[in-house]
Formats: sequence, C-alpha cells, structure tokens
Amino acid sequence: MPKLEGDERQKSLEPLFKAGWTIVEGRDAIYKEFLFKNFNEAFGFMTRVALLADKMDHHPEWFNVYNKVQVTMSTHDVSGLSAKDVKVANFMEDIFKTYK
Amino acid sequence: MPKLEGDERQKSLEPLFKAGWTIVEGRDAIYKEFLFKNFNEAFGFMTRVALLADKMDHHPEWFNVYNKVQVTMSTHDVSGLSAKDVKVANFMEDIFKTYK
Repeated sequence: MPKLEGDERQKSLEPLFKAGWTIVEGRDAIYKEFLFKNFNEAFGFMTRVALLADKMDHHPEWFNVYNKVQVTMSTHDVSGLSAKDVKVANFMEDIFKTYK
Repeated sequence: MPKLEGDERQKSLEPLFKAGWTIVEGRDAIYKEFLFKNFNEAFGFMTRVALLADKMDHHPEWFNVYNKVQVTMSTHDVSGLSAKDVKVANFMEDIFKTYK
C-alpha cells in the first residue's frame, strides 16, 4: 500500500475535498465532521464503517458525541495518505448520503 | 436528574476513581481510557455501551482508534455529573471486566 502521490493523489482526494474533507493541519491525514439527526443514526453509520474498516484492517480515528462523528483517516505505515484512506472515506460518503 | 453532590457524589465516584476514572481538568466530567486487544473488542464494547446509552438517552463523548476507547461522561443539563454518568460508567466497568 504505497503513499498517495502526484496525480493519483489529487484525483483521489478532489471529490473528497468537494464533499467537505480537509487536510489535517501539521499532518498528512484527512478529516471530516459528519452530522446526523440523532445518536441512532450516528452510531449506525459508525457501525457500518467499523465492519468495513475491520475487514480492511484499516481503522479510522474518530470522535463521537450524540449526533456528531468526527473522522480522521491516515495510514500509519506510510506516514500519510494511501488508497485505503480514500476507500474508507468514499464508503463513508456513500452511506452518509443514505441518511439524508 | 440532579447534579451529584456531597456524600452521594463521593460514594458514587470513589469506586470509579479506583477503577481509573479521573476528573477532567477544568470541567465537571469523568474520563477513562480503555484498552482492548484489538478493534473488534473495542468496537464491541462501544456497541454494548451505545445500546444502553441510547436507551437512557445519555450519551458518552468518546474517541476511538483501533484498540483504544477514550470516554468522557458528563450531564449537560446539570453542567456536571449526575447519577446517569455513574450508571453508564459502572456499566462500562462491568463489561470491560469480561474482556480480560
């Protein structure tokens, strides 16, 4: 799993930036805050992500309180972003749409 | 749900302090970091807590990455600690034991 660089990086991240992801200050990681109607929705979202993340052995850093889920994705092994982060983030975007 | 005070507060919190809970600096809230073998255990723990928390309509503030779950409990309505925080924290302690 190589570090994302150059064109591939830009192409992968652009749709995520448009969806509200940002680069974490001082760290090659991406971040987004997801807001839901309530805890049931927020934790349901986390549970769906957890199943994928554990299958991929690629886990988010995330904070939750009530309807809020703040996610940071990064790949420890490359000290930065990899395609795995993009895959998990895209999955979050896909399922987040279903909550609207 | 009144704010915990006096003897009742001390009696409720003492076992939690012994179990590793601490008072958050600058805030009337309690905090503990739980460490598990892996993400499966950590998220399983969170899921069991989530079900109780949502039933009680009393939700933790928590951060997770891989095998680590950092929990803060406080009661917004009383700007401090209530019996609800103690109940959820005690439940966490009860099920945390089962992971050892």
